[in-house]
Amino acid sequence: VIDAVPPAPASASGFGGSPHFTSVAQLDLPTVERIFSVADYLQPIARRQWTTRVLEGAVLANLFFEASTRTRLSFGAAFSRLGGSIIDTTGFTFSSMAKGESIADTSRVISGYADAIVVRHPDEGSVAQFAEATNVPVVNGGDGAGEHPTQALLDAYTIQREFGRLGKGIDGSRIAVLGDLRYGRTVHSLLRLLSLYRGLSFALFSPAGLELPASVAEHARAHGHRVESVASIADALAGADVVYTTRIQKERIPEGQAVELSPDWQLRRELLDAHSPADVIVLHPLPRDAREGAYDLSTDLDGDPRLAIFRQTDNGVAVRMAVFTELLGVSHLVADTLRPAAWSTPSPLRPDDPAL
Amino acid sequence: VIDAVPPAPASASGFGGSPHFTSVAQLDLPTVERIFSVADYLQPIARRQWTTRVLEGAVLANLFFEASTRTRLSFGAAFSRLGGSIIDTTGFTFSSMAKGESIADTSRVISGYADAIVVRHPDEGSVAQFAEATNVPVVNGGDGAGEHPTQALLDAYTIQREFGRLGKGIDGSRIAVLGDLRYGRTVHSLLRLLSLYRGLSFALFSPAGLELPASVAEHARAHGHRVESVASIADALAGADVVYTTRIQKERIPEGQAVELSPDWQLRRELLDAHSPADVIVLHPLPRDAREGAYDLSTDLDGDPRLAIFRQTDNGVAVRMAVFTELLGVSHLVADTLRPAAWSTPSPLRPDDPAL
Amino acid sequence: VIDAVPPAPASASGFGGSPHFTSVAQLDLPTVERIFSVADYLQPIARRQWTTRVLEGAVLANLFFEASTRTRLSFGAAFSRLGGSIIDTTGFTFSSMAKGESIADTSRVISGYADAIVVRHPDEGSVAQFAEATNVPVVNGGDGAGEHPTQALLDAYTIQREFGRLGKGIDGSRIAVLGDLRYGRTVHSLLRLLSLYRGLSFALFSPAGLELPASVAEHARAHGHRVESVASIADALAGADVVYTTRIQKERIPEGQAVELSPDWQLRRELLDAHSPADVIVLHPLPRDAREGAYDLSTDLDGDPRLAIFRQTDNGVAVRMAVFTELLGVSHLVADTLRPAAWSTPSPLRPDDPAL
Repeated sequence: VIDAVPPAPASASGFGGSPHFTSVAQLDLPTVERIFSVADYLQPIARRQWTTRVLEGAVLANLFFEASTRTRLSFGAAFSRLGGSIIDTTGFTFSSMAKGESIADTSRVISGYADAIVVRHPDEGSVAQFAEATNVPVVNGGDGAGEHPTQALLDAYTIQREFGRLGKGIDGSRIAVLGDLRYGRTVHSLLRLLSLYRGLSFALFSPAGLELPASVAEHARAHGHRVESVASIADALAGADVVYTTRIQKERIPEGQAVELSPDWQLRRELLDAHSPADVIVLHPLPRDAREGAYDLSTDLDGDPRLAIFRQTDNGVAVRMAVFTELLGVSHLVADTLRPAAWSTPSPLRPDDPAL
Repeated sequence: VIDAVPPAPASASGFGGSPHFTSVAQLDLPTVERIFSVADYLQPIARRQWTTRVLEGAVLANLFFEASTRTRLSFGAAFSRLGGSIIDTTGFTFSSMAKGESIADTSRVISGYADAIVVRHPDEGSVAQFAEATNVPVVNGGDGAGEHPTQALLDAYTIQREFGRLGKGIDGSRIAVLGDLRYGRTVHSLLRLLSLYRGLSFALFSPAGLELPASVAEHARAHGHRVESVASIADALAGADVVYTTRIQKERIPEGQAVELSPDWQLRRELLDAHSPADVIVLHPLPRDAREGAYDLSTDLDGDPRLAIFRQTDNGVAVRMAVFTELLGVSHLVADTLRPAAWSTPSPLRPDDPAL
Repeated sequence: VIDAVPPAPASASGFGGSPHFTSVAQLDLPTVERIFSVADYLQPIARRQWTTRVLEGAVLANLFFEASTRTRLSFGAAFSRLGGSIIDTTGFTFSSMAKGESIADTSRVISGYADAIVVRHPDEGSVAQFAEATNVPVVNGGDGAGEHPTQALLDAYTIQREFGRLGKGIDGSRIAVLGDLRYGRTVHSLLRLLSLYRGLSFALFSPAGLELPASVAEHARAHGHRVESVASIADALAGADVVYTTRIQKERIPEGQAVELSPDWQLRRELLDAHSPADVIVLHPLPRDAREGAYDLSTDLDGDPRLAIFRQTDNGVAVRMAVFTELLGVSHLVADTLRPAAWSTPSPLRPDDPAL
C-alpha cells in the first residue's frame, strides 16, 4: 500500500506563486524537492501497480501547435493515470488561430473547457502569453527555442533517483553535457534547474557553432557552479557522475549556418568504458538518432545498467503526474481513491532492461 | 447540492420526434425551454464544481471532416464532463471515404462503435444524410453553408441568461446583427431559433454583398418579427438589447465576388458607448479576428461586463451537455452520480473577466 | 445478467506463448475458440446494454502510422468499453521517427506510457519489430501487405455466429472469395485462420493479375482444405455458405501493373439470387466502394438478411475487446464491475437492419 503523501516543506513557493508552470525560473529548491517527493509517491501508479481516480471528471486540454508525439502522449498518459479525460489538438495550426484569433482569446476559450492546459508552440514566449490570459493552470510543453520545464524536472528527478540508488546526492556532482548545446533547449532548462543545487561542475563538449549560450553558463556560474568547455569527449567523461547526451537539432539550425559534425562525437560503450567512472549514468532527452552516421548516442549501450535513458522517459510520467496534482491541489487526495490495477504490468518493460 | 432536473413540459416535442439533432427546424419553444432548463441544471458540472458519471461507459464519435478545433473540443469536453469517452477524427478526409465509402456506410459502421455521433462536414446536407442511415443520435456540428444548431442554441441560451440577470425576457427585444450575414451560418440558425419567441426586432448591418439571404428574413417576418436593414452601425446599435457581431467568413466568399470592407465596421467601445443602451450585451460566435484592420469586434471591450462573448463560449459546454443528456434520455439520472470536484476551479477564469 | 466467463480450454496456447498478437500464425484452434467465447461473453457490453470498468486506469496507445480511421476507432471503442483510456497518434509520421528514432526506441518509450499498444504501419514486418522491443502487449493493427490479424478473427467470428444462427458449423463449409486476392491482406489472414478448421472448400474468383499468392493457397491445401480458382462469379457462388467480397486495393497495386476490371464482377442481388443457396451470408471487410463502376459489392443488398457486413463490423468491437482482456489477463474480472448502461441503445442500429 502507498503511504500518505509527504507534507510540503513550509519554504516551498509552489510554482513561484503562479497558477502556471511555464519556466524553471519559477522553482526554488524546496518546491523541486516537493515535486520529486510527490513523484516518488505516485510511482506505483505511473508503473501501473495501483490506479487512482483523483481527477475523475477533470479535463486536460493537450494543445500541441507543433508536432511532438512523445511529449503529447506522456502528458496524456499522466493525466489519464490520474483518472482525468483528455481533449487535444495535434495539428500545426489551430483552425481558429488561422482565422486571426489571438492567443489570449484561444486561451480564454479553452479555459471554459478544461481544468488544466498543456501548450506546445513553435514560438518562444507564446506559452507565457497563453498563460497570462487565464487562471486555469497552464503547463509549458515546449515553446520553440524557449523552455521545456517538465523535461528539465524529469531529467533532474532521474539524476536524483539514480544517485539515490548509488548512494550519492546531486550537490557537488560532475555533469558532462554533450552535443547540441545551443539549440537543445532541454540543456538550458536543465542547467538552470540544477543551478538550484550546490557546487556542481559542468563539463561541456559541443561541435563548433553549437556551444552553450553565454547567458546560460553565466547563470550557473552566478550560482556558484563550475562551467567549463572541454576539448574532447574523453575530457568531458573523466570523473563524470552523469553524461547528458543530446541530439543535434538539425531542424533548428538556421539555414546557412555551417556546422561540422563527426560520428566520432557519438557516445559509445568503448568511450564510456575508457574514460568514465564505473557508476556513471547516461541520460538523453530522446529521441535518439539511430541512423547511420548519427552523432548523439550509440545503441551499443542498450541493456547496460549505466544507460538510464528508458528509466528517464518512464520517470516523465510520474513527474508530469506530480506537476498536475500539485497545480490542481489534489496530491493529498490521491490516497483516498487508490485501487490495485486489475491487470499486471510486465517487468522488465523491455526484454533487455537491466534489473537494478 | 444540485436539485432534481426540472420535468419537461408536456408540450415539448423532444427534437421533433427524431433521435437526431441536425437542424433548428426540429425545435419548438417548449423543447428549447426544456434544453435551457437542463443546461441551467448542468451548469455546476460544466463549471467544474460537481462531477457526474452518468454516461460512464458511453462512447462519443466526434467526427470532424472539416477543421474546427474549438467546436470539436467543446463537444469533447461536454461528453467527458458527463463521464463518457471520446473517439474522434480530425482530418479533412476520412480514409474510408477516400476509398469510395458512402456516407451511409460510414454512418452505419460508426453506429456500431458509438452511442452518440457529432459530425462536422464541409458539405451542406451531408450531416442529414449521415443521420438518415442510423438510429444512433447524430448531432450536426456544422455542415458547410448549412446549419450549426448547437451554436444557435448556445447563443439564444446566453441571451436568455444575460437577460435573466438584467431582469428582461427575450420576447419583444431588439437584436442588432452585424457583419457577414450571408455566409455566417450561425446568424441564419440563430434567427430561425429566435423566431420561436414573440415580437422581436432585428436590425441588420452588413457590407454590400454580404446581406442576409431573403429566405431567412422572410422566415422571421412570417413568424411576426420585424427585420430591417439599417444604414449604419449607429442605427443598428440604437435601442439594441443585444449586439450580435460576426467575423467576415473570407474562406466562404466565392472567388471573384468583390466585397468592400472597412475597419469602420468594427464594433468598438466608443461606438457602443455612443449609441447603445447601457445594459446592452455583445455576442460573437468566435473566433474573433484580432489582426490589424479586422472588421468584427475590437479587443478594447475586453473586461467590460457588456462583452458576453466568453460567457457565451462557456455556455456552449452546458448546452452541449444538455443536448447529449436529452438525446440519450439520461437527464433525470445525473443527480444519482453527482460528486463534488476534487480540485477547485479558479474564478474568474480570465484575470479580467468581470464579476456579475 | 451476464454469466461468468467460460473457462479456457486446457489445450489453448494463449497467443502462442507470446505477450503480443501480431500474426494469425500464433493461434491454434482452442485459442480461437476461447477468444470467440470471450467475445460472445462481452457482446452485451459491446452492444451497450452493460458497462464494465475492468480496465479503469489502464491506457491504450493507439498508434496509427498509416491512416485507417475505421480500424483506429474500432480499437479505441473496444478499449473504452472496457473502462480504459486512450492516447493516440494518427499522423503518417511519428515526429520522433522523423528525427531518426528507431522502432525499438519508440516501442520502449511508449511502453512506459501504456498498458497495451496497437500499431498500424505501412511496412510489412514493422509491427513485429515493434513488438520485439517490449513486453507490453502489442496488437498488429495492419502492417502493409503483411497481416491484419484482428480482422481475420472478426471475420471468422462472424462466420461462426452466422452459422450458429443457421444451425451450421465451420467445418466442411464452402467459402467463395471474390475480388482482389493478391493485395487484399485480410483474405490472406482469413484463409490462414480458417485453415485451423477442417474440410473447407475455397472457391476463388479474382481479376487477372490479382490472384491469391500461391503460398497462401498452399498453406490451406497443406491443412487439408480444397482451394480452387473458378472461371466466373456464378461458379464461385454455387453452393457457397459464405461469400467473402473485397475491394480492389488500387492504392496497393504497383504502378505499371495493368489490371483489367469489370463492373460485371460486382456482387449484386440478382447474382446472389440466381446462383447461391438461400441461406448464404455475404461478408466484406469494408470499406465498400460505393462509386459508380465499383467492382466489389453493390448496395442493392442493403437491408437483406444475407448481407452480414454490418453485423461483421459490429462484431469487431467485441472481438477486439476479447483480444485485450485475454492479452491483459482480465477476462475473468469483467463480471465484478458490470453495471447496466444508463442510456438505451437503439435497435436496429440502422433503420433497415434486418431483425434476425
